Amino acid sequence: MQQRSEETRARILDAAVRQFAIAGYNAASVDDVCSEAGVSKGAFYHHFATKQSLFLALLEGWLKTVDLGLESIRQATVPQTLNQMTDLLPAIFATADERLPMFLEFWLQASRDETIWQATIAPYQHYQEYFAKLIEDGMAEGSIKIVDPHITARVIVSLAVGLFLQGVLDPKGADWDKVAKESMHILMNGLAK
Amino acid sequence: MQQRSEETRARILDAAVRQFAIAGYNAASVDDVCSEAGVSKGAFYHHFATKQSLFLALLEGWLKTVDLGLESIRQATVPQTLNQMTDLLPAIFATADERLPMFLEFWLQASRDETIWQATIAPYQHYQEYFAKLIEDGMAEGSIKIVDPHITARVIVSLAVGLFLQGVLDPKGADWDKVAKESMHILMNGLAK
Repeated sequence: MQQRSEETRARILDAAVRQFAIAGYNAASVDDVCSEAGVSKGAFYHHFATKQSLFLALLEGWLKTVDLGLESIRQATVPQTLNQMTDLLPAIFATADERLPMFLEFWLQASRDETIWQATIAPYQHYQEYFAKLIEDGMAEGSIKIVDPHITARVIVSLAVGLFLQGVLDPKGADWDKVAKESMHILMNGLAK
Repeated sequence: MQQRSEETRARILDAAVRQFAIAGYNAASVDDVCSEAGVSKGAFYHHFATKQSLFLALLEGWLKTVDLGLESIRQATVPQTLNQMTDLLPAIFATADERLPMFLEFWLQASRDETIWQATIAPYQHYQEYFAKLIEDGMAEGSIKIVDPHITARVIVSLAVGLFLQGVLDPKGADWDKVAKESMHILMNGLAK
Protein backbone atom coordinates (compact mmCIF):
# COMPACT_ATOMS: atom_id res chain seq x y z
CA MET A 1 0.00 0.00 0.00
CA GLN A 2 2.80 2.39 0.99
CA GLN A 3 4.54 1.76 -2.34
CA ARG A 4 1.38 2.34 -4.35
CA SER A 5 0.74 5.56 -2.48
CA GLU A 6 4.26 6.80 -3.30
CA GLU A 7 3.70 5.93 -6.99
CA THR A 8 0.46 7.90 -7.01
CA ARG A 9 2.19 10.90 -5.46
CA ALA A 10 4.99 10.73 -8.05
CA ARG A 11 2.43 10.46 -10.89
CA ILE A 12 0.61 13.56 -9.61
CA LEU A 13 3.91 15.51 -9.42
CA ASP A 14 4.89 14.51 -12.98
CA ALA A 15 1.46 15.46 -14.29
CA ALA A 16 1.67 18.80 -12.49
CA VAL A 17 4.98 19.68 -14.19
CA ARG A 18 3.37 19.05 -17.58
CA GLN A 19 0.10 20.85 -16.81
CA PHE A 20 1.81 23.91 -15.31
CA ALA A 21 4.10 23.99 -18.36
CA ILE A 22 1.24 23.86 -20.87
CA ALA A 23 -1.43 26.00 -19.23
CA GLY A 24 0.39 27.91 -16.48
CA TYR A 25 -0.09 27.62 -12.73
CA ASN A 26 -3.15 29.87 -12.58
CA ALA A 27 -4.98 28.24 -15.48
CA ALA A 28 -4.16 24.61 -14.65
CA SER A 29 -6.80 23.13 -12.32
CA VAL A 30 -6.62 20.25 -9.88
CA ASP A 31 -9.07 18.47 -12.26
CA ASP A 32 -6.57 18.86 -15.13
CA VAL A 33 -3.75 17.45 -13.03
CA CYS A 34 -5.89 14.51 -11.83
CA SER A 35 -7.00 13.73 -15.36
CA GLU A 36 -3.40 13.91 -16.71
CA ALA A 37 -2.17 11.71 -13.85
CA GLY A 38 -5.10 9.28 -14.10
CA VAL A 39 -5.94 9.58 -10.40
CA SER A 40 -9.16 10.45 -8.57
CA LYS A 41 -9.65 13.75 -6.78
CA GLY A 42 -9.87 11.76 -3.55
CA ALA A 43 -6.39 10.36 -4.17
CA PHE A 44 -5.13 13.86 -5.02
CA TYR A 45 -6.41 15.40 -1.78
CA HIS A 46 -4.99 12.49 0.19
CA HIS A 47 -1.53 13.73 -0.89
CA PHE A 48 -1.95 17.48 -1.32
CA ALA A 49 -4.25 19.85 0.55
CA THR A 50 -4.28 22.47 -2.23
CA LYS A 51 -2.82 23.28 -5.64
CA GLN A 52 -0.35 25.48 -3.78
CA SER A 53 0.86 22.54 -1.64
CA LEU A 54 1.44 20.60 -4.85
CA PHE A 55 3.41 23.51 -6.26
CA LEU A 56 5.55 23.79 -3.12
CA ALA A 57 6.19 20.02 -3.20
CA LEU A 58 7.57 20.38 -6.75
CA LEU A 59 9.93 23.13 -5.58
CA GLU A 60 11.06 21.04 -2.61
CA GLY A 61 11.67 17.97 -4.77
CA TRP A 62 13.88 19.90 -7.14
CA LEU A 63 15.89 21.39 -4.27
CA LYS A 64 16.58 17.94 -2.83
CA THR A 65 18.03 16.87 -6.19
CA VAL A 66 20.33 19.90 -6.29
CA ASP A 67 21.42 19.29 -2.68
CA LEU A 68 22.31 15.68 -3.43
CA GLY A 69 24.36 16.87 -6.41
CA LEU A 70 26.23 19.44 -4.29
CA GLU A 71 26.97 16.93 -1.53
CA SER A 72 28.37 14.40 -3.99
CA ILE A 73 31.05 16.66 -5.48
CA ARG A 74 33.07 17.86 -2.50
CA GLN A 75 36.77 17.59 -3.44
CA ALA A 76 40.07 17.88 -1.53
CA THR A 77 40.26 21.70 -1.83
CA VAL A 78 37.67 24.44 -2.29
CA PRO A 79 38.92 25.59 -5.75
CA GLN A 80 38.76 21.94 -6.90
CA THR A 81 35.22 21.66 -5.50
CA LEU A 82 34.11 24.81 -7.35
CA ASN A 83 35.64 23.59 -10.61
CA GLN A 84 34.02 20.20 -10.17
CA MET A 85 30.63 21.91 -9.86
CA THR A 86 30.68 23.01 -13.47
CA ASP A 87 30.66 19.31 -14.41
CA LEU A 88 27.13 19.08 -12.97
CA LEU A 89 25.73 21.61 -15.42
CA PRO A 90 25.34 19.50 -18.59
CA ALA A 91 23.18 17.03 -16.65
CA ILE A 92 21.08 19.88 -15.22
CA PHE A 93 20.61 21.47 -18.65
CA ALA A 94 19.70 18.13 -20.20
CA THR A 95 16.77 17.61 -17.83
CA ALA A 96 15.74 21.27 -17.62
CA ASP A 97 14.00 21.60 -20.97
CA GLU A 98 10.64 20.30 -19.74
CA ARG A 99 11.06 21.98 -16.39
CA LEU A 100 11.91 25.54 -17.46
CA PRO A 101 8.29 26.72 -17.50
CA MET A 102 7.94 25.33 -13.99
CA PHE A 103 10.90 27.36 -12.69
CA LEU A 104 9.59 30.50 -14.32
CA GLU A 105 6.23 29.75 -12.71
CA PHE A 106 7.93 29.54 -9.30
CA TRP A 107 9.39 33.00 -9.76
CA LEU A 108 6.22 34.44 -11.27
CA GLN A 109 4.00 33.06 -8.52
CA ALA A 110 6.56 34.22 -5.95
CA SER A 111 6.11 37.78 -7.22
CA ARG A 112 2.36 37.47 -6.51
CA ASP A 113 2.01 35.28 -3.42
CA GLU A 114 3.74 35.75 -0.06
CA THR A 115 3.76 32.02 0.88
CA ILE A 116 5.28 30.99 -2.44
CA TRP A 117 7.67 33.94 -2.24
CA GLN A 118 8.97 32.70 1.13
CA ALA A 119 9.37 29.17 -0.23
CA THR A 120 11.15 30.43 -3.36
CA ILE A 121 13.52 32.73 -1.49
CA ALA A 122 14.48 30.13 1.13
CA PRO A 123 16.60 27.99 -1.22
CA TYR A 124 18.58 31.02 -2.41
CA GLN A 125 19.39 31.77 1.22
CA HIS A 126 20.31 28.10 1.66
CA TYR A 127 22.69 28.24 -1.34
CA GLN A 128 24.10 31.59 -0.18
CA GLU A 129 24.97 29.93 3.12
CA TYR A 130 26.38 26.83 1.40
CA PHE A 131 28.73 28.91 -0.76
CA ALA A 132 29.63 31.35 2.05
CA LYS A 133 30.70 28.34 4.15
CA LEU A 134 32.67 26.93 1.19
CA ILE A 135 34.48 30.27 0.70
CA GLU A 136 35.21 30.44 4.46
CA ASP A 137 36.63 26.90 4.28
CA GLY A 138 38.79 28.00 1.34
CA MET A 139 40.14 31.00 3.27
CA ALA A 140 40.82 28.71 6.26
CA GLU A 141 42.72 26.18 4.15
CA GLY A 142 44.61 29.04 2.46
CA SER A 143 43.40 28.33 -1.09
CA ILE A 144 41.09 31.39 -1.39
CA LYS A 145 42.01 35.06 -0.97
CA ILE A 146 40.59 36.97 2.01
CA VAL A 147 37.19 38.21 0.73
CA ASP A 148 33.73 38.83 2.15
CA PRO A 149 32.34 35.25 2.03
CA HIS A 150 28.67 36.38 1.97
CA ILE A 151 29.09 38.82 -0.89
CA THR A 152 31.23 36.30 -2.79
CA ALA A 153 28.57 33.63 -2.28
CA ARG A 154 25.97 35.99 -3.79
CA VAL A 155 28.22 36.47 -6.80
CA ILE A 156 28.51 32.70 -7.33
CA VAL A 157 24.76 32.12 -6.90
CA SER A 158 23.94 35.02 -9.27
CA LEU A 159 26.24 33.60 -11.91
CA ALA A 160 24.72 30.12 -11.52
CA VAL A 161 21.15 31.48 -11.75
CA GLY A 162 22.02 33.54 -14.85
CA LEU A 163 23.82 30.66 -16.57
CA PHE A 164 20.96 28.31 -15.80
CA LEU A 165 18.27 30.67 -17.05
CA GLN A 166 20.10 31.49 -20.28
CA GLY A 167 21.11 27.89 -20.85
CA VAL A 168 17.57 26.57 -20.62
CA LEU A 169 16.05 29.47 -22.60
CA ASP A 170 18.53 29.16 -25.45
CA PRO A 171 20.16 25.73 -25.26
CA LYS A 172 21.72 26.01 -28.73
CA GLY A 173 22.79 29.67 -28.33
CA ALA A 174 26.19 28.79 -26.87
CA ASP A 175 28.30 25.91 -25.66
CA TRP A 176 26.97 26.42 -22.10
CA ASP A 177 29.20 23.75 -20.67
CA LYS A 178 32.20 25.71 -21.93
CA VAL A 179 30.72 29.03 -20.73
CA ALA A 180 30.20 27.54 -17.24
CA LYS A 181 33.78 26.27 -17.08
CA GLU A 182 35.15 29.60 -18.33
CA SER A 183 33.01 31.49 -15.77
CA MET A 184 34.47 29.44 -12.97
CA HIS A 185 37.96 29.89 -14.46
CA ILE A 186 37.56 33.71 -14.42
CA LEU A 187 36.10 33.64 -10.89
CA MET A 188 38.98 31.46 -9.70
CA ASN A 189 41.50 33.83 -11.31
CA GLY A 190 39.92 36.51 -9.15
CA LEU A 191 39.51 34.43 -5.98
CA ALA A 192 42.15 31.70 -5.70
CA LYS A 193 45.48 32.39 -4.02
CA MET B 1 -3.34 64.64 -32.79
CA GLN B 2 0.06 62.96 -33.06
CA GLN B 3 0.80 63.83 -29.43
CA ARG B 4 -2.53 62.51 -28.22
CA SER B 5 -1.98 59.28 -30.13
CA GLU B 6 1.43 58.83 -28.47
CA GLU B 7 -0.16 59.44 -25.07
CA THR B 8 -2.81 56.80 -25.77
CA ARG B 9 -0.12 54.31 -26.79
CA ALA B 10 1.86 55.01 -23.61
CA ARG B 11 -1.30 54.61 -21.48
CA ILE B 12 -2.01 51.22 -23.09
CA LEU B 13 1.58 50.07 -22.45
CA ASP B 14 1.43 51.13 -18.77
CA ALA B 15 -1.92 49.41 -18.30
CA ALA B 16 -0.55 46.25 -19.92
CA VAL B 17 2.38 46.08 -17.46
CA ARG B 18 -0.11 46.22 -14.56
CA GLN B 19 -2.61 43.77 -16.07
CA PHE B 20 0.05 41.22 -17.04
CA ALA B 21 1.50 41.55 -13.53
CA ILE B 22 -1.84 40.95 -11.80
CA ALA B 23 -3.48 38.32 -13.98
CA GLY B 24 -0.68 36.96 -16.17
CA TYR B 25 -0.28 37.26 -19.92
CA ASN B 26 -2.62 34.38 -20.77
CA ALA B 27 -5.42 35.46 -18.45
CA ALA B 28 -5.26 39.23 -19.12
CA SER B 29 -7.55 40.14 -22.03
CA VAL B 30 -7.44 43.08 -24.44
CA ASP B 31 -10.70 44.19 -22.76
CA ASP B 32 -8.96 44.27 -19.35
CA VAL B 33 -6.08 46.34 -20.73
CA CYS B 34 -8.49 48.78 -22.47
CA SER B 35 -10.56 49.17 -19.34
CA GLU B 36 -7.45 49.75 -17.15
CA ALA B 37 -6.08 52.27 -19.68
CA GLY B 38 -9.44 53.99 -20.18
CA VAL B 39 -9.29 53.63 -23.99
CA SER B 40 -11.70 52.11 -26.53
CA LYS B 41 -10.98 48.83 -28.30
CA GLY B 42 -10.85 50.84 -31.55
CA ALA B 43 -8.03 52.96 -30.12
CA PHE B 44 -6.26 49.80 -28.93
CA TYR B 45 -6.34 48.11 -32.33
CA HIS B 46 -5.18 51.34 -33.97
CA HIS B 47 -1.90 50.86 -32.06
CA PHE B 48 -1.57 47.10 -31.65
CA ALA B 49 -2.74 44.34 -33.99
CA THR B 50 -2.86 41.68 -31.24
CA LYS B 51 -2.12 41.11 -27.56
CA GLN B 52 1.15 39.56 -28.72
CA SER B 53 2.15 42.79 -30.57
CA LEU B 54 1.49 44.71 -27.35
CA PHE B 55 3.66 42.25 -25.44
CA LEU B 56 6.51 42.55 -27.97
CA ALA B 57 6.25 46.38 -27.82
CA LEU B 58 6.79 46.22 -24.03
CA LEU B 59 9.90 44.10 -24.53
CA GLU B 60 11.23 46.47 -27.19
CA GLY B 61 10.60 49.54 -25.02
CA TRP B 62 12.55 48.06 -22.13
CA LEU B 63 15.48 47.15 -24.40
CA LYS B 64 15.70 50.72 -25.71
CA THR B 65 16.02 51.97 -22.13
CA VAL B 66 18.84 49.53 -21.40
CA ASP B 67 20.61 50.47 -24.66
CA LEU B 68 20.46 54.17 -23.80
CA GLY B 69 21.94 53.38 -20.39
CA LEU B 70 24.79 51.35 -21.91
CA GLU B 71 25.60 54.06 -24.48
CA SER B 72 25.74 56.74 -21.82
CA ILE B 73 28.41 55.11 -19.65
CA ARG B 74 31.32 54.47 -22.01
CA GLN B 75 34.52 55.56 -20.20
CA ALA B 76 38.17 56.06 -21.24
CA THR B 77 39.13 52.38 -20.79
CA VAL B 78 37.21 49.12 -20.90
CA PRO B 79 37.78 48.19 -17.21
CA GLN B 80 36.54 51.67 -16.23
CA THR B 81 33.48 51.19 -18.46
CA LEU B 82 32.69 47.81 -16.86
CA ASN B 83 33.06 49.24 -13.35
CA GLN B 84 30.85 52.20 -14.28
CA MET B 85 28.13 49.78 -15.37
CA THR B 86 27.52 48.61 -11.83
CA ASP B 87 26.44 52.20 -11.03
CA LEU B 88 23.42 51.65 -13.29
CA LEU B 89 22.07 48.81 -11.19
CA PRO B 90 20.44 50.70 -8.28
CA ALA B 91 18.34 52.67 -10.78
CA ILE B 92 17.34 49.46 -12.58
CA PHE B 93 16.42 47.71 -9.31
CA ALA B 94 14.44 50.74 -8.13
CA THR B 95 12.12 50.62 -11.16
CA ALA B 96 12.04 46.83 -11.49
CA ASP B 97 9.65 46.02 -8.66
CA GLU B 98 6.49 46.59 -10.70
CA ARG B 99 8.08 45.14 -13.80
CA LEU B 100 9.41 41.83 -12.48
CA PRO B 101 6.25 39.88 -13.28
CA MET B 102 6.47 41.26 -16.82
CA PHE B 103 10.03 39.98 -17.31
CA LEU B 104 9.10 36.59 -15.95
CA GLU B 105 6.15 36.61 -18.34
CA PHE B 106 8.55 37.29 -21.25
CA TRP B 107 10.57 34.23 -20.34
CA LEU B 108 7.56 32.07 -19.60
CA GLN B 109 5.80 32.98 -22.86
CA ALA B 110 9.11 32.51 -24.69
CA SER B 111 9.19 28.91 -23.50
CA ARG B 112 5.74 28.38 -25.10
CA ASP B 113 5.66 30.53 -28.24
CA GLU B 114 8.22 30.57 -31.06
CA THR B 115 7.64 34.25 -32.06
CA ILE B 116 8.04 35.48 -28.49
CA TRP B 117 11.02 33.14 -28.04
CA GLN B 118 12.77 34.74 -31.01
CA ALA B 119 12.03 38.23 -29.68
CA THR B 120 13.23 37.29 -26.18
CA ILE B 121 16.44 35.64 -27.36
CA ALA B 122 17.41 38.47 -29.76
CA PRO B 123 18.37 40.97 -27.00
CA TYR B 124 20.61 38.42 -25.28
CA GLN B 125 22.44 37.97 -28.57
CA HIS B 126 22.58 41.76 -28.89
CA TYR B 127 24.15 42.08 -25.39
CA GLN B 128 26.50 39.16 -26.08
CA GLU B 129 27.76 41.07 -29.10
CA TYR B 130 27.98 44.34 -27.18
CA PHE B 131 30.14 42.79 -24.45
CA ALA B 132 32.21 40.69 -26.89
CA LYS B 133 33.06 43.93 -28.74
CA LEU B 134 33.89 45.66 -25.44
CA ILE B 135 36.23 42.80 -24.43
CA GLU B 136 37.87 42.90 -27.89
CA ASP B 137 38.37 46.66 -27.46
CA GLY B 138 39.91 46.01 -24.05
CA MET B 139 42.34 43.43 -25.49
CA ALA B 140 43.21 45.88 -28.31
CA GLU B 141 43.92 48.72 -25.86
CA GLY B 142 45.93 46.32 -23.67
CA SER B 143 43.76 46.64 -20.55
CA ILE B 144 42.20 43.14 -20.73
CA LYS B 145 43.98 39.76 -20.82
CA ILE B 146 43.80 37.68 -24.00
CA VAL B 147 40.56 35.66 -23.56
CA ASP B 148 37.77 34.33 -25.78
CA PRO B 149 35.63 37.50 -26.08
CA HIS B 150 32.42 35.60 -26.90
CA ILE B 151 32.66 33.22 -23.96
CA THR B 152 33.64 36.10 -21.66
CA ALA B 153 30.66 38.12 -22.88
CA ARG B 154 28.36 35.19 -22.00
CA VAL B 155 29.85 35.14 -18.51
CA ILE B 156 29.15 38.87 -18.03
CA VAL B 157 25.58 38.60 -19.39
CA SER B 158 24.88 35.52 -17.21
CA LEU B 159 26.08 37.36 -14.13
CA ALA B 160 23.96 40.42 -14.98
CA VAL B 161 20.84 38.27 -15.58
CA GLY B 162 21.38 36.38 -12.32
CA LEU B 163 21.99 39.55 -10.29
CA PHE B 164 18.96 41.21 -11.81
CA LEU B 165 16.65 38.27 -11.19
CA GLN B 166 17.76 37.79 -7.59
CA GLY B 167 17.76 41.52 -6.90
CA VAL B 168 14.18 41.99 -8.03
CA LEU B 169 12.92 38.76 -6.38
CA ASP B 170 14.49 39.56 -3.03
CA PRO B 171 15.32 43.28 -2.91
CA LYS B 172 16.01 43.25 0.84
CA GLY B 173 17.93 39.94 0.81
CA ALA B 174 21.30 41.60 0.22
CA ASP B 175 22.95 44.92 -0.53
CA TRP B 176 22.65 44.23 -4.27
CA ASP B 177 24.52 47.36 -5.22
CA LYS B 178 27.49 46.10 -3.20
CA VAL B 179 27.13 42.57 -4.62
CA ALA B 180 27.16 43.98 -8.17
CA LYS B 181 30.29 46.04 -7.50
CA GLU B 182 32.03 43.08 -5.84
CA SER B 183 31.06 40.82 -8.79
CA MET B 184 32.67 43.23 -11.19
CA HIS B 185 35.68 43.53 -8.90
CA ILE B 186 36.17 39.73 -8.91
CA LEU B 187 35.65 39.56 -12.68
CA MET B 188 38.16 42.36 -13.19
CA ASN B 189 40.69 40.56 -10.95
CA GLY B 190 40.35 37.66 -13.36
CA LEU B 191 40.25 39.68 -16.60
CA ALA B 192 42.21 42.94 -16.30
CA LYS B 193 45.93 43.06 -17.09
